[in-house]
Amino acid sequence: MTTTLPPVPTGANDAGAVANATGPISANESSESPTESHLHVDDDHRIDINGLTKVLDGRWRDMRDYGRSIAADPDFARPMNISKEDHRELTLRRLKKLAERNWSEQMLPKSLGGTNNPGGNLAAFEELVAGDPSVQIKAGVQFGLFASAILHLGTEEHHKKWLAPTMSLDLPGVYAMTEIGHGSDVSAVGTTATYDPETEEFVIDTPFRAATKEFLGNAALHGHAAVVFAHLITNGVNHGVHCFFVPIREDGKILPGVSVEDDGEKGGLNGIDNGRLAFDHVRVPRTNLLNRYGDVAADGTYSSDIASPGRRFFTMLTTLVQGRVSLSGAAINAAELALGIAVTYATQRRQFADFTGINEVVLLDYQLHQKRLFPLLARTYASAFAQEDLLQAFHEVFSGEGDTEDNRIDLETMAAALKPTSSWLALDTIQACREACGGAGYMAENRLVGLHDDLDVYATFEGDNHVLLQLVGKRLLGEYANSMKDMDTGNVTKFIASRAETISTRHTPWRRLLQSAADLGSVRRTAASLRDPSLQVELISSRAEGLIEELSLDLRQASSMSKQDAAALVNSHQAELIDAAKAHVDLILLTAFNNGLEKIEDKETKAVLVRLRDLFALTTIKRELAWYLMHGHLSHGRARTLDDYINRLLTKIRPHALDLVAAFGYTQEHWRAPISSGLERQRQEEAADYYRRHRASNDAPIDEKVLYKREQDAKKKAERNKAS
Amino acid sequence: MTTTLPPVPTGANDAGAVANATGPISANESSESPTESHLHVDDDHRIDINGLTKVLDGRWRDMRDYGRSIAADPDFARPMNISKEDHRELTLRRLKKLAERNWSEQMLPKSLGGTNNPGGNLAAFEELVAGDPSVQIKAGVQFGLFASAILHLGTEEHHKKWLAPTMSLDLPGVYAMTEIGHGSDVSAVGTTATYDPETEEFVIDTPFRAATKEFLGNAALHGHAAVVFAHLITNGVNHGVHCFFVPIREDGKILPGVSVEDDGEKGGLNGIDNGRLAFDHVRVPRTNLLNRYGDVAADGTYSSDIASPGRRFFTMLTTLVQGRVSLSGAAINAAELALGIAVTYATQRRQFADFTGINEVVLLDYQLHQKRLFPLLARTYASAFAQEDLLQAFHEVFSGEGDTEDNRIDLETMAAALKPTSSWLALDTIQACREACGGAGYMAENRLVGLHDDLDVYATFEGDNHVLLQLVGKRLLGEYANSMKDMDTGNVTKFIASRAETISTRHTPWRRLLQSAADLGSVRRTAASLRDPSLQVELISSRAEGLIEELSLDLRQASSMSKQDAAALVNSHQAELIDAAKAHVDLILLTAFNNGLEKIEDKETKAVLVRLRDLFALTTIKRELAWYLMHGHLSHGRARTLDDYINRLLTKIRPHALDLVAAFGYTQEHWRAPISSGLERQRQEEAADYYRRHRASNDAPIDEKVLYKREQDAKKKAERNKAS
Repeated sequence: MTTTLPPVPTGANDAGAVANATGPISANESSESPTESHLHVDDDHRIDINGLTKVLDGRWRDMRDYGRSIAADPDFARPMNISKEDHRELTLRRLKKLAERNWSEQMLPKSLGGTNNPGGNLAAFEELVAGDPSVQIKAGVQFGLFASAILHLGTEEHHKKWLAPTMSLDLPGVYAMTEIGHGSDVSAVGTTATYDPETEEFVIDTPFRAATKEFLGNAALHGHAAVVFAHLITNGVNHGVHCFFVPIREDGKILPGVSVEDDGEKGGLNGIDNGRLAFDHVRVPRTNLLNRYGDVAADGTYSSDIASPGRRFFTMLTTLVQGRVSLSGAAINAAELALGIAVTYATQRRQFADFTGINEVVLLDYQLHQKRLFPLLARTYASAFAQEDLLQAFHEVFSGEGDTEDNRIDLETMAAALKPTSSWLALDTIQACREACGGAGYMAENRLVGLHDDLDVYATFEGDNHVLLQLVGKRLLGEYANSMKDMDTGNVTKFIASRAETISTRHTPWRRLLQSAADLGSVRRTAASLRDPSLQVELISSRAEGLIEELSLDLRQASSMSKQDAAALVNSHQAELIDAAKAHVDLILLTAFNNGLEKIEDKETKAVLVRLRDLFALTTIKRELAWYLMHGHLSHGRARTLDDYINRLLTKIRPHALDLVAAFGYTQEHWRAPISSGLERQRQEEAADYYRRHRASNDAPIDEKVLYKREQDAKKKAERNKAS
Repeated sequence: MTTTLPPVPTGANDAGAVANATGPISANESSESPTESHLHVDDDHRIDINGLTKVLDGRWRDMRDYGRSIAADPDFARPMNISKEDHRELTLRRLKKLAERNWSEQMLPKSLGGTNNPGGNLAAFEELVAGDPSVQIKAGVQFGLFASAILHLGTEEHHKKWLAPTMSLDLPGVYAMTEIGHGSDVSAVGTTATYDPETEEFVIDTPFRAATKEFLGNAALHGHAAVVFAHLITNGVNHGVHCFFVPIREDGKILPGVSVEDDGEKGGLNGIDNGRLAFDHVRVPRTNLLNRYGDVAADGTYSSDIASPGRRFFTMLTTLVQGRVSLSGAAINAAELALGIAVTYATQRRQFADFTGINEVVLLDYQLHQKRLFPLLARTYASAFAQEDLLQAFHEVFSGEGDTEDNRIDLETMAAALKPTSSWLALDTIQACREACGGAGYMAENRLVGLHDDLDVYATFEGDNHVLLQLVGKRLLGEYANSMKDMDTGNVTKFIASRAETISTRHTPWRRLLQSAADLGSVRRTAASLRDPSLQVELISSRAEGLIEELSLDLRQASSMSKQDAAALVNSHQAELIDAAKAHVDLILLTAFNNGLEKIEDKETKAVLVRLRDLFALTTIKRELAWYLMHGHLSHGRARTLDDYINRLLTKIRPHALDLVAAFGYTQEHWRAPISSGLERQRQEEAADYYRRHRASNDAPIDEKVLYKREQDAKKKAERNKAS
């Protein structure tokens, strides 16, 4: 099968050219017969779908369109019932097709023939998930990791020598960081690169089994070279982890000293040939050190522009943040795909008769079905808005628009915060969608199980979710400590004491209850105030801040403790650290949603989106309701209005559900699921037709239940007659 | 590969014969070096593993052992990287092996040559999940559904003719109930069976596409006949859904009038050839009606011992409850397997250096890791105890020990309650375990992803989880209404009013707060009282009851409303109905755990299990903390002690984690995961050895960080000297 890929958009770095500007203003179920929905729709807002897509797509909407057009190409669809061997070869061929179209030239700076559009590059990359996630992740290995390491950790000679063949896929590469023994703790890898001044070579070595490089895409079969993270040792000093270019295959043969093992079948992404690499004193030239942040002279002298080994290591790792940024985006897209399939199906699929006993109810008219899907839809919108901010932050640093130390740290933190929550959102959403589609959701052709399989690893790769959230929590603690730095010791003590009093006051419900008593008066009034966006922000930010304050207080004695006791104290607050980081993400998402609303011009669209924002905010508050109650932020009276209010929002969002998933920019071309194709509606109509004709015909059998009831009634009557 | 299966235990119906009575009293990590765990273990309780396994295995422990021994047979392991075609053939061959060993003779009554041990039969069946779940579910289709329909819905002639070949697998069968258009709503299937008195045949027909039978195991390839659920129509009357034996293949060829479609690849269970069946006026003899509950005479006259068509249909469906019972058990076993793998790995895998900067910390010593796994472990124990009760209830009804109407209804309700919660527990646990094992958890060889794939469908088949929980909720509402039936109208009104007052009192926090103020005094005292098992029961039962009471009040006007308004009112309380059913399950689990504790004789084992019960109760209460606070059942003061108490329990359970998973009765023979084999410990020791030798050697490179620190210190000192 040959495929013509669409051209890469030219106005890549501006948002001028937008595709499909025409199209339906509303995909609303206007074709539904009145009996199809029993909802009382209290408004006739209509969503401007294309306008909303434009807002969601943000600065790089042309690149997103481009990515989506590739994902829609049947030749890029996730294959079914294929052996891992065939899937691997297919994926490699598809990657070559991408490369032929100069896929990823956007990521290179202009000096290297690119367009210096790292944000646009990732925007398109994130969309590939809608095709086959194996293609996406293999592209991520080749361009996002292997090429990026050469680009960001290497210098001019490396760029000249290796970037062109890497981008063309003549040089498929391996990113050899993780080891069997060390995943998220990169500084602890065991692989060594010892400089030998006599031959001017580095000796790459795997000193023990656990130091074997593990889970590496392109390692099992396709990789020609690897960028290997190893401790650089020269002149008797270990300078910490650096990155080395190490050839591993030539003419399809594994090079001497290199051992390769195949990881075999995985939970998903089986189009990628993951494997293990070990090195037995493999020698590479001195110049194979990717030497941007540290170099070794011919005589073995080490030099670096960054004196502190800690900061140097952090700087090297920062160059790799794009993996986390783009996984967050791809995960959100996967959630959007799943919601598109499940919501569409739920507007067609019927189950159990309604009050007439004749018509069956469309799944999405069940409150429960709305409750299973709409809060996830709301959080997916919030996440999509936040992702655009993250991508923007990434672009600023990596395009040079705003490459400051502060921006780098903020970018690191935001990526570490969103990658975990986006990937969990994707898994939760895909699973909820799969279950919401019943048995049909379990059929591979309907996409949902495959999406779960492929996205599952997102939770643990490119930094384990829990490890990343701890980093975020620690950063927040640090910021909190910094905010108190300017005070002298005496004041800090007083400050802490007063904070402690504040917090303990919050713990005590009585004082607050006096106020909350005043809240009770009218349920309607309190409900209305929960719709107040500034109250929502106030509640969600107070928890984000409150958790960090409490944690700071709980940990304040750690610095005066023995190392062992301090470690035990910190360990006993690990869960709180994670909670604080997650609360921070809730605040990020709400803020992003609110900012996103500002960009929506169409009034009616905005009105619907405000409800979706309310749903996001209120279900987030509801999830942590115990905290709000215990800390006196919500009175019991106001808290009791939450459920009713959420239920009312569900009803109001229901008529717009199809429009809201349509605005994600995916169509059946991307969903590819028979259950979202309209087939289900057709079957339902056919069945309804049959029963209509059946009821109208004279020779239709009568239901025994009817006869039985008549009989029972007659018996009762006879007995009554007898008795009277 | 040939396999000798172990013999079926003979003393099947009593618990006398127990295998592996000898063995280690404790698998506790006694071989750990002191540096391996930094926990302060405040007790030296040792678990009697075999004794605990005995209690968990319950009445049918011999059958469980038998099932586990088959699952441990390498020839019954889940295959990897296999095409669905090969997997299907392999699964059929394995099923024949089971059949050769008279697998399932336990299910038949003595009159049919069986041992009349339905409970034991399911106990063994539930264990098959530890091998390949495809084998288990295909066995479920053949024996649990197809054979059971013949057994329970057919009569003597059917038993004589079809049971023997079914049990021997000479007659592989299809259970054709679900249709494309109707899953959980069986009464609404579209297939018809119209009696033709002229030929004395039933005409089986699929009148429209949505009435096609769907997701049927054995349909795509292996089935020779199907038991088809269709509306029985004779003499112009539709007598509701009955079951018909319909041949579909002969000599491998599909019979005329039957159409077959292959469901293709699924999310898991790809060893089963699921497919669709449609019938175009297929004729079967009159006697192919499985006529235990309803029959048609040669002249077309319908007769049944059960006059009410509704009750007749319910009675027919009740015979099929064993699917739900055994899926609940299999799901719990799958959770046990996943916990066995993840907990074992977590006691060996290390990540990030501890306070010494030298040793790395074992994953399970992290509080967070404990918090991710132990509450699931506790709930799995609770579920295992409850499952034994469910199996007992099933056995009583189906062996004839106690086959009463009340027992049948209770069994139905309990199965409808536990199948959803057990299957979700399994999915949550498997996913948590997979993530807790990091990248290794994503490798197929480590089992967790495969377990998720295969178990995923448990949430929606044999009755969708949400549909079943609604049935449970309605049953609870009915019971509540019944409990008020004896009162006359005036009293009922008063009763409702007083209940309303009680409930609204609960809603109002003030009164309760007076009491909760008294609770505050000493945190230690309140914590101690949360350990009080009767307080735990009081809290969890008050929620289970409270939710039903509130719901009754909310819905009390439905009976006086129009059908449409009543339906809307009920629809707007769907989520509450589900919550009430889930709360009821929490109470079932806690009660079962408490009863289970009574069966443990060994004092030290019991002490550990009491902590696990506490963890189950307190994490369950914590999950619904907002409800307890809002309803005044817990004071804010007492609620604040929850986290600390849970954290202390985690620390106390930690030393027993390996014993607790060992007591499930699974070993590496069942887990089959390289990461639970001890390989990881070996790798870690090798790495530690390397670094020990390294530190001891003279020519080890020095860390640049050390040099840098020295340098910085020297600089500071020089500056200080200069300044002074």
